[in-house]
Amino acid sequence: MSLLDDVNEPADLDRLTGDQLGLLATEIRAFLVDAVCRRGGHLGPNLGVVELTLALHRVFRSPHDRIIFDTGHQAYVHKLLTGRRDRFAALRGRGGLSGYPRRAESPHDLVENSHASTALSYAEGLARAYALDRTDRAVVAVIGDGALTGGLAWEALNNLATSPGRVVVVLNDNGRSYAPTVGGLADHLAGRHGGDAGPGLFEALGLAYLGPIDGHDVHQVEAALQKARAADRSVVVHCVTQKGYGHQPSETDVADRLHAVGVVDPLTGRPASSPNRTWTDALSDELVAIGEGRPDLVAVSAAMLGPTGLAAFGERYPDRTVDVGIAEQHAVTSAAGLAFGGKHPVVAVYATFLNRAVDQVLLDVALHRLPVTLVLDRAGITGPDGPSHHGMWDLALLGAVPGLRVAAPRDEATLREELREAVAHEDGPTVLRFPKAGVGDEIPTLYRSGGVDVLRTATAAPVLLVAVGAMAAPALRAADLLAEAGVECTVVDPRWVRPVNPALTALADEYALVVTVEDGVRDGGIGSALALALADAAVDAPVRSLGLPTSFIPHGERAGLLAEHGLDPPGICAAVLHQVSTIPAGLDRRVRDRAQASLTALHG
Amino acid sequence: MSLLDDVNEPADLDRLTGDQLGLLATEIRAFLVDAVCRRGGHLGPNLGVVELTLALHRVFRSPHDRIIFDTGHQAYVHKLLTGRRDRFAALRGRGGLSGYPRRAESPHDLVENSHASTALSYAEGLARAYALDRTDRAVVAVIGDGALTGGLAWEALNNLATSPGRVVVVLNDNGRSYAPTVGGLADHLAGRHGGDAGPGLFEALGLAYLGPIDGHDVHQVEAALQKARAADRSVVVHCVTQKGYGHQPSETDVADRLHAVGVVDPLTGRPASSPNRTWTDALSDELVAIGEGRPDLVAVSAAMLGPTGLAAFGERYPDRTVDVGIAEQHAVTSAAGLAFGGKHPVVAVYATFLNRAVDQVLLDVALHRLPVTLVLDRAGITGPDGPSHHGMWDLALLGAVPGLRVAAPRDEATLREELREAVAHEDGPTVLRFPKAGVGDEIPTLYRSGGVDVLRTATAAPVLLVAVGAMAAPALRAADLLAEAGVECTVVDPRWVRPVNPALTALADEYALVVTVEDGVRDGGIGSALALALADAAVDAPVRSLGLPTSFIPHGERAGLLAEHGLDPPGICAAVLHQVSTIPAGLDRRVRDRAQASLTALHG
Repeated sequence: MSLLDDVNEPADLDRLTGDQLGLLATEIRAFLVDAVCRRGGHLGPNLGVVELTLALHRVFRSPHDRIIFDTGHQAYVHKLLTGRRDRFAALRGRGGLSGYPRRAESPHDLVENSHASTALSYAEGLARAYALDRTDRAVVAVIGDGALTGGLAWEALNNLATSPGRVVVVLNDNGRSYAPTVGGLADHLAGRHGGDAGPGLFEALGLAYLGPIDGHDVHQVEAALQKARAADRSVVVHCVTQKGYGHQPSETDVADRLHAVGVVDPLTGRPASSPNRTWTDALSDELVAIGEGRPDLVAVSAAMLGPTGLAAFGERYPDRTVDVGIAEQHAVTSAAGLAFGGKHPVVAVYATFLNRAVDQVLLDVALHRLPVTLVLDRAGITGPDGPSHHGMWDLALLGAVPGLRVAAPRDEATLREELREAVAHEDGPTVLRFPKAGVGDEIPTLYRSGGVDVLRTATAAPVLLVAVGAMAAPALRAADLLAEAGVECTVVDPRWVRPVNPALTALADEYALVVTVEDGVRDGGIGSALALALADAAVDAPVRSLGLPTSFIPHGERAGLLAEHGLDPPGICAAVLHQVSTIPAGLDRRVRDRAQASLTALHG
Repeated sequence: MSLLDDVNEPADLDRLTGDQLGLLATEIRAFLVDAVCRRGGHLGPNLGVVELTLALHRVFRSPHDRIIFDTGHQAYVHKLLTGRRDRFAALRGRGGLSGYPRRAESPHDLVENSHASTALSYAEGLARAYALDRTDRAVVAVIGDGALTGGLAWEALNNLATSPGRVVVVLNDNGRSYAPTVGGLADHLAGRHGGDAGPGLFEALGLAYLGPIDGHDVHQVEAALQKARAADRSVVVHCVTQKGYGHQPSETDVADRLHAVGVVDPLTGRPASSPNRTWTDALSDELVAIGEGRPDLVAVSAAMLGPTGLAAFGERYPDRTVDVGIAEQHAVTSAAGLAFGGKHPVVAVYATFLNRAVDQVLLDVALHRLPVTLVLDRAGITGPDGPSHHGMWDLALLGAVPGLRVAAPRDEATLREELREAVAHEDGPTVLRFPKAGVGDEIPTLYRSGGVDVLRTATAAPVLLVAVGAMAAPALRAADLLAEAGVECTVVDPRWVRPVNPALTALADEYALVVTVEDGVRDGGIGSALALALADAAVDAPVRSLGLPTSFIPHGERAGLLAEHGLDPPGICAAVLHQVSTIPAGLDRRVRDRAQASLTALHG
């Protein structure tokens, strides 16, 4: 019988002795390594906060007291201590335990969003609410040094100093974001500017400071938290931890301390199977190749050189590679500055994180028509990281940006080609977006017309299928199914999806029905933009847009989630048949009858 | 002959003696008071930077050296010194001198965007570009203490410390944003935490620090700038100035130091004519009234309690009013925290500034379905403040947010009603948006059906005009014009424009043509959303959407700019006639013929 088996709620920690806590920490690490290596997930960050989390749950009474984990990928230990041990077997699967805090799972989870740098703001507001109600509930925010580089955290620190709400800020300082934390703050925390580490900055802002403390010593952490809890103002408790602590492959992985992994061998930390070539790999290789002949190219990353594929460029051209930390706003606006200085910056971020810099893309880059290339990795349905990691907002949000050109490559060849077009574009910004997935086989074009690639066609086909980016493959397979059902489609890849290409508008005029397929929200997406363009051009063909609903999509496998939302070949086929069987005009009656018959067969 | 008459470029300042500089400063202030009081504009901020700007242009050689003004509303002195004196007569008018730096006006202007907190990021990127090219050009960023509370500025400071780009950061510390600057930073700069003002924070980040310096002493400022220019790393030059310096009505205006004014009497600082009642006034009154019976209501502002109408609430309920500084991200996420704590926050910001917090609205508030009311003032065409102040993006951007309800009141009565509905809504966030304008007369409804107000109708009218918010008035007048031309319209105000009300979809099914009218970008706007909803509901009526193009709209008068984009009664009328005369089906031929005849008459 292990100690961990007896911990079903935080109060079960109270009766443990110091020695037992040490044993429990070891058991927790073994459990995490096993569970995460089986299912994939965040390993290094959780191994680093075992003692910290034990201390938190011994000092504070969750959920009466509130513990908010910034980003949330380091909440596995918290989940283990709050009665969710058995659910790790289904970690990150559809319907299984989330890799982040989730309100539906436990009253101990408050915040679900997993974008960084938010915890201090939530905590300040929550503590203010408690102060207004004169409620004695402690509010704790656990935030990494990496997340402190985000501007939102600064805004919160500035306000915490004068807020009536008292917050215990647990600074989990492991010297890393995903990559090592960069900038003046990191140097300050490490004491590299001379003087004491830590207090200068926080005390200058009017916050109390305790530390630095060994974050792997439960007793030291507990003592500091008790003191912070009793203070009459907000306190920063500076805990120094080591990402991956206690697991040799994680500790020695200098690249990222096994930050987030797929299914891996627990002994070596190596992937269990070699992955397919990804879109990111293709981007990485092509960017290095282009960089050779383009000394003006500068790569910009927000703490993710590795995951966005910029690391290879950084090794080859270190002077022309910038990691700004978790700071998407600055990534974009400093890129504007670089462009003012004659450079062509390539800013690569996850699609969902560009939400942080909408204003900067709009008014800092686009207003000045600056040549900046934004590469959006993890666009569309991402998978196991859940609602805040799906990159499904970009196509809709970016539609509001004047003069922005957006490309969605369908395969590696078009990714390379469109990246070259992007960095050659001098009059305003461009976006290149692609999913987190294997890049798959090349999808050849029959011919290119006015910049639009025609991938499949048939004489007098009544339906035009417009496939955005990676949706080309399922759209083509759907076209096969449709042909079997007696409905021929032309399938095109518009390559540059914003602004709408007039060649696409002209082409649409030759069809009775236009169906767009995109892995982003439909409202305001590419289908929506095409419908507007057709209305403006007085083209009568109705546009039906297939895509994602305006709702938050839970974690699960990418393929399964796409299928759930009708974005797999059978789903696209069924949607087209439905539309063909109901559109009022402009379609041969026999085609409509065949569609109706196929639909009946499908459902019957 | 005044000294100012002889200053046509910065080099003209070189030959002036110390006494002459003092005289010139006095002349510049007199010029500014006269010019701004005639035309409206930013007064206090510019009066505060006269000596600072003189010193900048004596030490640095613009445009070879680059001076970037954060926000840009304090660049009037810079404009005067760079050959634009004569153009102040048309300040902020259509085609006249912009109230912000403008590239088309002068090679001395680099950045046009007037959102706060950007300058350090532009400067860091630009200086990095120069460093890569080993170019000896100085980069100067002039930023207020208020703008330093914005997270983007923090992200830049953190990066400046370790960037190869050297920047001279001129901190124009007047202790104010719009209102007095709040938070730990302001207290630090004022030395209220004990210790020296300033150096603690910046030196902790690894930046050099010079100051505090009297920003109204040209020689002191010059000496510091010379020193900063020669330094081997980025330097913060901390200049203490007084907003409104040298103009008695500005200095004594404790509320906002005549920050931004309409046309005013230069002697008293009072408005030349009493303004009409504005939408902001209506919001202000109603919020105070609701606050009485709703002790859970908390008002949140990002440094603009006055301009957004929250000041009255703040006087009445000071404990429940929060000014977070220029920090829209924190405003929204701390509101999420307040809502987690059982409060109902009302966050009031200018519509264009919500762009800064898109991710926070989406993932911090909406993902958790929190009851937060966002009030967007200055939505739509704003007027003389130009491209970055028009609030034309909100309706499109917010369409991507699941579960968000958006109301656009058409008059004061609906504003009051919809605000009450917003704060009564408990399952997710709401937005209330209205323009910068007089609120105008009440627009009565004939009847309400399923939540949609029918404002005008006629038997068998073929056209449904859907007016968003303040577009109701011009839409109704357009309907009069259309009736005269023989085309009857039903005009409705959907009140809540997102999500699309099924009652509106059902109503649309009874018409041959649906035309939407909104003062936001068309792509992804309300018309776009309605078209999608009608397609999903298999309603055949074509939707034609009138609104703003996806382009940057220059400064000018609101009414004139709306008319230019066809959003005045004649413009709406002409657009409807054009559509009626061309839509292919579902319309009585006689109506179409009448429309065709009217169009011919209009154009002929």
